[in-house]
Amino acid sequence: MITNGSQQGLDFSGKLFINEGDVVICESPSYVGALNAFRAYMPKFVEVPMDDEGMKIDDLEKALIGNPKTKFIYVVPTFQNPTGRTMSIERRKQLIQLACEYNVPIIEDNPYGELKFGDEEIPPVKHFDTAGIVIYLGTFSKTFCPGLRIGWVAASPDIVRKYVLAKQGADLQTNTMSQIELAKFIELYDFDEHVERVRNIYRNRRDAMLNAMKEEFPASIKYTYPDGGMFTWVELPKGIDAADILKKSLECKVAFVPGSSFYPNGGNENHFRLNYGTMSEDLIAEGIKRLGKVLRAL
Amino acid sequence: MITNGSQQGLDFSGKLFINEGDVVICESPSYVGALNAFRAYMPKFVEVPMDDEGMKIDDLEKALIGNPKTKFIYVVPTFQNPTGRTMSIERRKQLIQLACEYNVPIIEDNPYGELKFGDEEIPPVKHFDTAGIVIYLGTFSKTFCPGLRIGWVAASPDIVRKYVLAKQGADLQTNTMSQIELAKFIELYDFDEHVERVRNIYRNRRDAMLNAMKEEFPASIKYTYPDGGMFTWVELPKGIDAADILKKSLECKVAFVPGSSFYPNGGNENHFRLNYGTMSEDLIAEGIKRLGKVLRAL
Repeated sequence: MITNGSQQGLDFSGKLFINEGDVVICESPSYVGALNAFRAYMPKFVEVPMDDEGMKIDDLEKALIGNPKTKFIYVVPTFQNPTGRTMSIERRKQLIQLACEYNVPIIEDNPYGELKFGDEEIPPVKHFDTAGIVIYLGTFSKTFCPGLRIGWVAASPDIVRKYVLAKQGADLQTNTMSQIELAKFIELYDFDEHVERVRNIYRNRRDAMLNAMKEEFPASIKYTYPDGGMFTWVELPKGIDAADILKKSLECKVAFVPGSSFYPNGGNENHFRLNYGTMSEDLIAEGIKRLGKVLRAL
Repeated sequence: MITNGSQQGLDFSGKLFINEGDVVICESPSYVGALNAFRAYMPKFVEVPMDDEGMKIDDLEKALIGNPKTKFIYVVPTFQNPTGRTMSIERRKQLIQLACEYNVPIIEDNPYGELKFGDEEIPPVKHFDTAGIVIYLGTFSKTFCPGLRIGWVAASPDIVRKYVLAKQGADLQTNTMSQIELAKFIELYDFDEHVERVRNIYRNRRDAMLNAMKEEFPASIKYTYPDGGMFTWVELPKGIDAADILKKSLECKVAFVPGSSFYPNGGNENHFRLNYGTMSEDLIAEGIKRLGKVLRAL
């Protein structure tokens, strides 16, 4: 079913699954826009820690055992917002297995999957789903145009029927003109070539940012190395609040998003998210230089 | 604030105001799309009877007194869907007065107001609102293009701020391309002239349908005479179910919407809605002829 960007699929997921006090399991940290969409339906969030291979499966199982009122597991498994991390294929399979065992659906939010910089194939979690337990949210916002608001929900027919009802109540239909415009673009042009062009731009910007960070950031500061998408996730030494760094950084006209809002239950003030998606390589290098100066003065 | 058609404004109204068991007061009958949008948030609906001047104000006051958990009064005061009726100016003022007295906001849904066939000015309820108690929902769907999904919420700033939060969670923004397209149309062409053209088309279709009904329908059947919009509302003699008429009518390839779904608490099976908006005058006349034959055979 077509939605107004994948954000609408997130809102409908909350609307359809969550009653007040139900549990949503998510990665820690997780996408703040999803957390806000779900929050309107008043769930309790249970965060599962991540490492460089994504959500830790042992901890996920503990969360499932401890929370029988879990309505779904929300994941951004590929080039995650905010961390840039990607869940390994092995964990994707384990995630499905656990979801089936505990009969809890997975909401797979995959806006960045197409923006991969390497050659490795990373099939979505949905790819391994033979049981129909994964609800997949896709979008053209990151590969084509966010302003068109065209995303989609892919799930088993009985689940899609519920999303269709939500759509009818919410806004009847997604803009048909834009759907025609997008379909025409795909018909007239080579969409894969277009995505390849977008990938190259973002890859260069990733390189510009990560190279500059290596040069400019003090060694005490850790960060992720994304293989796609738009984000790297920075961890400051414990006790340092990213909001304080932001204040100083804004004085040099450099902005970022402090990390604590990505943790639904708060805390973790020593993190922040950097986005290399929107600036030219020159500006990225200059911004990181200024930010490095702030960080080295700590 | 711009919404995806006024339907999204209805959904947000439910989301922002209704908790399970709260009361929504509406006209009896009322717009089924609004009822479905609100129903997702599990209110109790209290219906207020109408006459040719719209909602009966005495009954509205009784409903307000009897239901202290009322969260809002939902009205389609102008060329209502489904009845085609218009609330008189006197009642509009009384409606505001009561809403203020009982401190209950009014959701004014006005998709059809521009489609008026006569010369009489019918200011929206919002026009008489000096207290900021009316939340007005408008749309370009009926005057320009439903597929663009461009509507709006107009309300006092403190209320609009709440709708903005709902919008952020629901889908971040309304399609910007379509907003640019519409703005360009309004800049390049005379929008009032365009609406006048639309009005003429619908006026002719209203005449085609109502003239044919006068000819073809038995005298025992009552119906409204709309001064604008797209609908007339038919009342069959008590005990006759419009769903049964629909079955027979579909055999002659004529369809309409049976009335009971417009009553949130059911009943009133002896009503149905006719829409003259979508067919040519010839087809309307032919359709009413066939429907008249079914009705005369009762």
